[in-house]
Amino acid sequence: MTDAAALIAEMGLRARNAASLLARTPSTDKAAALRAAAATIRARSADILAANAQDMARGAANGLSPAMLDRLKLDPARLEGIAAGLESVAALPDPVGETIDEIERPNGLVLRRVRVPLGVVGIIYESRPNVTADAGALSLMSGNAAILRGGSEAIESSRAIHAALIEGLRAAGLPEDAIQLVPTTDRAAVGAMLKAAGLIDIIVPRGGKSLVARVQEEARVPVLAHLDGINHVYVDAAADPDKAVAIALNAKMRRTGVCGAMETLLIDRAYPDPAPILAGLAEARCELRGTAEIRTIEPRALPADEEDWDTEYLDGICSVALVDGVEDAMAHIARHGSHHTDSIVTEDSATAERFLAEVDSAIVMWNASTQFADGGEFGLGAEIGISTGRLHARGPVALEGLTTYKWQVRGTGQTRP
Amino acid sequence: MTDAAALIAEMGLRARNAASLLARTPSTDKAAALRAAAATIRARSADILAANAQDMARGAANGLSPAMLDRLKLDPARLEGIAAGLESVAALPDPVGETIDEIERPNGLVLRRVRVPLGVVGIIYESRPNVTADAGALSLMSGNAAILRGGSEAIESSRAIHAALIEGLRAAGLPEDAIQLVPTTDRAAVGAMLKAAGLIDIIVPRGGKSLVARVQEEARVPVLAHLDGINHVYVDAAADPDKAVAIALNAKMRRTGVCGAMETLLIDRAYPDPAPILAGLAEARCELRGTAEIRTIEPRALPADEEDWDTEYLDGICSVALVDGVEDAMAHIARHGSHHTDSIVTEDSATAERFLAEVDSAIVMWNASTQFADGGEFGLGAEIGISTGRLHARGPVALEGLTTYKWQVRGTGQTRP
Repeated sequence: MTDAAALIAEMGLRARNAASLLARTPSTDKAAALRAAAATIRARSADILAANAQDMARGAANGLSPAMLDRLKLDPARLEGIAAGLESVAALPDPVGETIDEIERPNGLVLRRVRVPLGVVGIIYESRPNVTADAGALSLMSGNAAILRGGSEAIESSRAIHAALIEGLRAAGLPEDAIQLVPTTDRAAVGAMLKAAGLIDIIVPRGGKSLVARVQEEARVPVLAHLDGINHVYVDAAADPDKAVAIALNAKMRRTGVCGAMETLLIDRAYPDPAPILAGLAEARCELRGTAEIRTIEPRALPADEEDWDTEYLDGICSVALVDGVEDAMAHIARHGSHHTDSIVTEDSATAERFLAEVDSAIVMWNASTQFADGGEFGLGAEIGISTGRLHARGPVALEGLTTYKWQVRGTGQTRP
Repeated sequence: MTDAAALIAEMGLRARNAASLLARTPSTDKAAALRAAAATIRARSADILAANAQDMARGAANGLSPAMLDRLKLDPARLEGIAAGLESVAALPDPVGETIDEIERPNGLVLRRVRVPLGVVGIIYESRPNVTADAGALSLMSGNAAILRGGSEAIESSRAIHAALIEGLRAAGLPEDAIQLVPTTDRAAVGAMLKAAGLIDIIVPRGGKSLVARVQEEARVPVLAHLDGINHVYVDAAADPDKAVAIALNAKMRRTGVCGAMETLLIDRAYPDPAPILAGLAEARCELRGTAEIRTIEPRALPADEEDWDTEYLDGICSVALVDGVEDAMAHIARHGSHHTDSIVTEDSATAERFLAEVDSAIVMWNASTQFADGGEFGLGAEIGISTGRLHARGPVALEGLTTYKWQVRGTGQTRP
């Protein structure tokens, strides 16, 4: 066994032990730990900001891009956001112990499906120090032990925040092993986590595409993730023009770097007035890449090539094409989409219902911006990630997605004939 | 690409296309296909039995064990059971399209989680020809395309039954690619299925432990299965003696080869009268393997060694030990169990509830025989398998376990602030 494998095995065993206790820890204790952690973060804000300053200095010296440095940076407002986030997770309804359904069989057996935690959640992330708090909090509140592996860029910040989580666990009398931070930044630890089947029940990668791709490629443990968000807005012939302009603009430009951003705009050839939609985007400094037809409508558009339809820009760029109705739009989405979030703009409810039923994505929308693809916006209170996988949990995943169920069977001495 | 990989890729693409149609096929059409297939099986019973006779003759010549030949054998009664099974799956409620929950957000967005099929289900099985019909039927009724890979021993029987399924699909106007049988018995096809991520959404192995172990070891596609059923019955100090005797006997001896059979009996040291439980098993010709204490109570018991506690006998053998109350019993189960089915016999409801809450198995029971661990007995109408995994579906899995969900978001033009 390599050093990394031995480390993860040892952490995994401690996590499993903690998990069996967490599975029966009352909500009030889990919430108390998170509130105490929030208080500790506030009390230690100077220390945490100093730790973050070390990361920032090292990052700048190592030539991190301005975007990466911004992701890494903590300030008093961001730190207060982290503390408040812990408190808001503490206030969420606890899914553990919830009865999903119950039936009585003719022989008198009563069968109940009850939610239980998954067990041990492994979170692998990059430079955002807030993930340490968010992922630890969601895992704890859903009764799971967490093994956190943060990126080397943010390691001092992550350690300082993790220490506050440990204080919270201590204050609530919960085991410190409930939320463990991998002490090494050695990349081999990631590989060991991905192979720790039996010790880690699910891996959640939080970060850029190369991280997610590596995790999906190497993992022997189930992975909850999305690789791409190649999201479409389809403007149908029967779309309301004001909604079409507003939704296309918001879906693309509200924030261009989020996974719920629109990447491709499809407009029905029968839609009467596509020009204002394209002009709205162009005027918001969105680079349009379109077909020849699109470029006659909006001369600022550049030509699109085949790759554009399969590209997640995560930037102020949008591919645009005309299609022949909802059927053609759905065919384009089936060919080029990534099963994340796709939206139709139309006033025709039959067309909308067809789109909602037939587009095979985790999230399908009607007359709404794809930027709503977010656990907070879905009323889940938070999210550990968005899944485009088909099993277990899809779309934004929060507490319920970190649980499974067991069957409880209550009898009065029944034997099977 | 190897021949096997190319074959599975080509079948997988056809399955994906069929799946996108099946996802929106009405229940009535799916049920009609299954009823037509049942009628075809009855009409062609002579042909199917003749095909089975070929398998039986080859199996006998190849020296298959009597148990394997029995599993392989079809007769008119078993064939009628297969036809009736198709009809009973056709009568099950269709989970596809069901709304799991719906909420309205303060901004007016209406979010609905709706059940959708998983997509493409791969079933890998051995010599039981009925799996061709059962697994094909459950996949179809839940809106999934199926790729069936039956064992070489039963290949003629499987082909004949598969042909009847195809007749059913044709009669209902559904694509023949909805239920495909891998034409080759080359074992490389199994390996190709296990690696067909993106084409096959879930693999269900049906067969012996070596098959399941290979599938779990090699698969890159998620697997729904159980490896072992090391199931426990714990007789508590406060057990009703009649229930204890009846449940222990039934849990072990009703059928010893099923995954829900008890393999280890744990008796509370404080239980007043263990002798009749052990005598009941011994008189039913169960070989008892016990600790020294057990052997003083029941002299017919043989000594158990350490391996016995971790052994799934699937035979008329039972390991037995005394424990110190429910805590000790749960510790034994945590150490040696396989997270399948464990039962407590007690009249003390507080002890029972503790066992139901804390034992980390897919199925936990109170005063009931572990032999009830079965989709039919759970009211699911059938089962594609029993899962001891933690994600997606646990315990007996039928139609609902073969679905996932999508989020449908209905708006009126909302954009995200």
